[in-house]
Amino acid sequence: MPAYATNMRLKFPILALILEIITIILYAVFVTYDDGKGHGHDANSNHTSNPVELYPMFQDVHVMIFIGFGFLMTFLKKYGFSSVGINLLLAAFGLQWGLLMQGVWHMDHGKIKVDVFKMINADFSTATVLISFGAVLGKTSPVQLLIMTILEITIFSINEHLVANILSANDVGASMIIHAFGAYFGLAVARVLYRPGLRNGHENDGSVYHSDLFAMIGTVFLWMFWPSFNSAIAEPGFVQLTAVINTYLSLAACVLSAYAISSLVEHKGKLDMVHIQNATLAGGVAVGTCADMNIQPFGAMLIGVVAGIISTLGFKYLSPVLASKLGIQDTCGVHNLHGMPGILGGLAGIVAVALGKKDGSAAMQAAALASSLGFALIGGAITGLIMKLPVWGQPPDQNCFDDSIYWEVPEADEESDGSLAPADHSKNKTEA
Amino acid sequence: MPAYATNMRLKFPILALILEIITIILYAVFVTYDDGKGHGHDANSNHTSNPVELYPMFQDVHVMIFIGFGFLMTFLKKYGFSSVGINLLLAAFGLQWGLLMQGVWHMDHGKIKVDVFKMINADFSTATVLISFGAVLGKTSPVQLLIMTILEITIFSINEHLVANILSANDVGASMIIHAFGAYFGLAVARVLYRPGLRNGHENDGSVYHSDLFAMIGTVFLWMFWPSFNSAIAEPGFVQLTAVINTYLSLAACVLSAYAISSLVEHKGKLDMVHIQNATLAGGVAVGTCADMNIQPFGAMLIGVVAGIISTLGFKYLSPVLASKLGIQDTCGVHNLHGMPGILGGLAGIVAVALGKKDGSAAMQAAALASSLGFALIGGAITGLIMKLPVWGQPPDQNCFDDSIYWEVPEADEESDGSLAPADHSKNKTEA
Amino acid sequence: MPAYATNMRLKFPILALILEIITIILYAVFVTYDDGKGHGHDANSNHTSNPVELYPMFQDVHVMIFIGFGFLMTFLKKYGFSSVGINLLLAAFGLQWGLLMQGVWHMDHGKIKVDVFKMINADFSTATVLISFGAVLGKTSPVQLLIMTILEITIFSINEHLVANILSANDVGASMIIHAFGAYFGLAVARVLYRPGLRNGHENDGSVYHSDLFAMIGTVFLWMFWPSFNSAIAEPGFVQLTAVINTYLSLAACVLSAYAISSLVEHKGKLDMVHIQNATLAGGVAVGTCADMNIQPFGAMLIGVVAGIISTLGFKYLSPVLASKLGIQDTCGVHNLHGMPGILGGLAGIVAVALGKKDGSAAMQAAALASSLGFALIGGAITGLIMKLPVWGQPPDQNCFDDSIYWEVPEADEESDGSLAPADHSKNKTEA
Repeated sequence: MPAYATNMRLKFPILALILEIITIILYAVFVTYDDGKGHGHDANSNHTSNPVELYPMFQDVHVMIFIGFGFLMTFLKKYGFSSVGINLLLAAFGLQWGLLMQGVWHMDHGKIKVDVFKMINADFSTATVLISFGAVLGKTSPVQLLIMTILEITIFSINEHLVANILSANDVGASMIIHAFGAYFGLAVARVLYRPGLRNGHENDGSVYHSDLFAMIGTVFLWMFWPSFNSAIAEPGFVQLTAVINTYLSLAACVLSAYAISSLVEHKGKLDMVHIQNATLAGGVAVGTCADMNIQPFGAMLIGVVAGIISTLGFKYLSPVLASKLGIQDTCGVHNLHGMPGILGGLAGIVAVALGKKDGSAAMQAAALASSLGFALIGGAITGLIMKLPVWGQPPDQNCFDDSIYWEVPEADEESDGSLAPADHSKNKTEA
Repeated sequence: MPAYATNMRLKFPILALILEIITIILYAVFVTYDDGKGHGHDANSNHTSNPVELYPMFQDVHVMIFIGFGFLMTFLKKYGFSSVGINLLLAAFGLQWGLLMQGVWHMDHGKIKVDVFKMINADFSTATVLISFGAVLGKTSPVQLLIMTILEITIFSINEHLVANILSANDVGASMIIHAFGAYFGLAVARVLYRPGLRNGHENDGSVYHSDLFAMIGTVFLWMFWPSFNSAIAEPGFVQLTAVINTYLSLAACVLSAYAISSLVEHKGKLDMVHIQNATLAGGVAVGTCADMNIQPFGAMLIGVVAGIISTLGFKYLSPVLASKLGIQDTCGVHNLHGMPGILGGLAGIVAVALGKKDGSAAMQAAALASSLGFALIGGAITGLIMKLPVWGQPPDQNCFDDSIYWEVPEADEESDGSLAPADHSKNKTEA
Repeated sequence: MPAYATNMRLKFPILALILEIITIILYAVFVTYDDGKGHGHDANSNHTSNPVELYPMFQDVHVMIFIGFGFLMTFLKKYGFSSVGINLLLAAFGLQWGLLMQGVWHMDHGKIKVDVFKMINADFSTATVLISFGAVLGKTSPVQLLIMTILEITIFSINEHLVANILSANDVGASMIIHAFGAYFGLAVARVLYRPGLRNGHENDGSVYHSDLFAMIGTVFLWMFWPSFNSAIAEPGFVQLTAVINTYLSLAACVLSAYAISSLVEHKGKLDMVHIQNATLAGGVAVGTCADMNIQPFGAMLIGVVAGIISTLGFKYLSPVLASKLGIQDTCGVHNLHGMPGILGGLAGIVAVALGKKDGSAAMQAAALASSLGFALIGGAITGLIMKLPVWGQPPDQNCFDDSIYWEVPEADEESDGSLAPADHSKNKTEA
């Protein structure tokens, strides 16, 4: 294929190096360690006696970002290298960028002071990008995706500041500012990058048996550690415990409804791996905003059950319509896992605050949801238009969902089937 | 295949939804958050200044339940979706049910107050089901398994209460009340569900190369986090440290004996993946009862070495006899990983208490072991009879060990080999 | 193949059992639990009020050792069982041996008192062996590797004591004493075991699509938890936080440079999985010595960027030369991931100490680096000569990189391709 199709030959490495150099310069000027001597400029930071107290929860979130999102997307039969590999690239750059973009609102004597709390938030900021990545998976180049990472995290940080500090809305588990935002941002990008040539599907846009098992590694780690995601930045003590319990129970209840609906809507009552890999997680998304509220365990479970139902139904009935009628080709179905459950979470938060389950204003909660959706749709559309510039490169339709356009790909697990690039023995590292 | 064979078409989704709705109603009536204001009704709970202090150990246990057990069972070549997927379903329902069944003995003003300690115990309760699941893996329907989950966790909770609160026996790592109980419960079920048609084996009852590697993900996570399993509910401080150290060293020693015996008994001295995947873990099972006792590091290592030996020998010589002579078809060999090492753990506990390694009564330890085995065998037999009712559905012999009876299965990793269901493109989510 | 070729038939199990028995006897004499009553004999141990405070970091390191190293090496198409299985064997024995060898320098009334701090260090000691294992992967027998484990950990413990206690050099993340040491030790062994028959490569010395994905499980867990590796034994408090932050940022920056250089040097700008699996981790190695120093975040990122560059270039240009000109056949390219980045870390430490980023002597830092390299090269050469003794067995060239010489191997994922041993139904455990 011609080099312009991939833009890997020079544009990718040059862009990656320039971005990293600029980032390092900004860090040299603005970023230092937290030394415990801050004076309340950053009210969100939970300075405790032990500065690594939150570290285990940070590592849980870290696993969700790098293993969870990375492997969840390996379900595609020929796109596993890109799924886990580009996920690593975007998240590694994104966390550096996010730490800057989020930190700029909380400077202490002109410095961003890094602590575990800020590292968790930086990981969070990358989650928006990885959600959007799911919508355009297989149809975008690494160069395009790096551009998206910069723009999306920048826009996210503005909306986050607005929601958390100006509107003072509750969103401890980020149903609105991460999940709904990331999903609708990605869907807007996908709409702008609509490919008529994929209208009738693509032979590589599907799984094989073992790729579905790799994806389950991602699913299960996301599922297990979601209580950490929703509670990591909650108020320490029993409020944090509440966030853990609500998420744990919402997810458990969600599994039952996702399995039940998957079986109900599928051929002969069989379960569909797409639903199991994704809809079982919708309970974690939907309980996010309310996670630290006194909604009681059964309230969290109800949210989980509803999330599992709408997510599974979305995969079955809504995604095909979005693709065929609205031109929104959502590779991973992020609308079903993050979009609708994120809105559900935002709505649940409005109701919960109105019912006095936590201090706050229902109107501000509603404004936060509207803001997140607005920034996502407009920001995503603009970002999509920028990503569409021919200069960044974009894979041709026939090379979509195929690692071999960006990666040296070894032979398939058994005999080469002819459709993969022949092994070039570049793996043989011991001899010239 | 006819619908009655699977019972997926309606019975599975209806049962799953009804169970979840009943559970939510029970939670609405009986379950609330721990708010730190309990008054000693629950002497087991370790209320500390930080209510999420045990959370990292909870997450280790969580990983063992969902990744460990789930992937350990993916060794079967065509049953990976069911192994990890049904494991998720049973554990997600089981932890909700277990929290109720265990909590009922420790109510505070008519309420079960959820904390991390109770979440760990709820995860523990699911372990019994997942062990039993291993015995009947590939030969039971999801409907049957949900029935087993309810019954087994209920019976487990009674025996656990008897052992811990009435007999006041030591079993911190649950060699008796989880491992031996789960194994003999599952073996009793397997005996009742004996299939003469599988007497000569089944072509799908085996592994392929990559399925064995997926299983090693489960093995290694179980192996690494077992010290958390055995110490999570130990008395905080140096007793908990003792439980960590004993388990860590028992497992390390067990690896050496399992490898040695695997090589000794196999053809040309080769290692067998079945032994490595399972017998290396027997040290964690067997040291469970004694984990928090002053048995000294070398004592823990001796227990580990013996466990590795009897577990490997069990796989090689005992399992075939159990199947052919007693009609106990134990798919994963849980008798070797959980059954015999669990009894070994119980016996070691009797000796250790008799030797004064921890306060207690050797007679009560023996009674605890007997109680666990008795509840398991009788409870398992009754549960097996209930599971055998034709109404729940059961896969025909020829469809055993095959995901395609319950799952939409994509093509195999390379060309379809004809034995799997043809791809139906249901994975193509972007187009109608 | 003849039995002498594998030495599995009797020598392996006998050696494994004898080693374990000797170890247990030594533990019976010398090892007990930490009871919190030590009197400062061990200045390194961080006795805090909670003896399991470091436990979550220990578990992160544990995951790196057993999942990280184990799965990183599964990239070879037919050597996955050995990679993850022998990794488990060596690390399980190594941690028992390391606890003795390291503990002997810190006895308290003639006893080694085990605590979480010592368990972390024991895991560290195994890392040296697993790094060296990478250099000789596929070309050595389990018996040879057990011999290497004993000798390497013993020599490591002497050098570690010299560096930490005699020279009082800084190496909190062990760039020198683990990474450089393990790499050059392994390269010296590989040189002694040079195989002319593999000069032109080997058909099994390469990956297939899914083996590269299994390897990414190892890569990503190593990448995520490296901050724990570099900070686990740092001074508690803000120094430990500094070590976390430096490592987190060095790794993130390293990803960008590794991807950029991989694309720059490869055919048509494509990414190479070997680089992504390995060079993205070089930032963790190289920032090790400086991790707890006040080098500022941008300093850590610069180290990461440089490490990613030299590691990727090493894979591309240096490894082939080392193999063809110097006879050093480095299967996993440990020189590029651990060797050069380890030296870079040592040099950075000299500079940082000279610049006053931490108390210490630049000369002692240099002596520590020289000592680590000297012990590694001489110790590795002697160990290689001992491993070369015919009595231990060594696989013939044609059986290198092939599990079937040491393992019962099931059929390949689809039809047997003839090159693997036919399935022998030994997996069918339910029937005789």
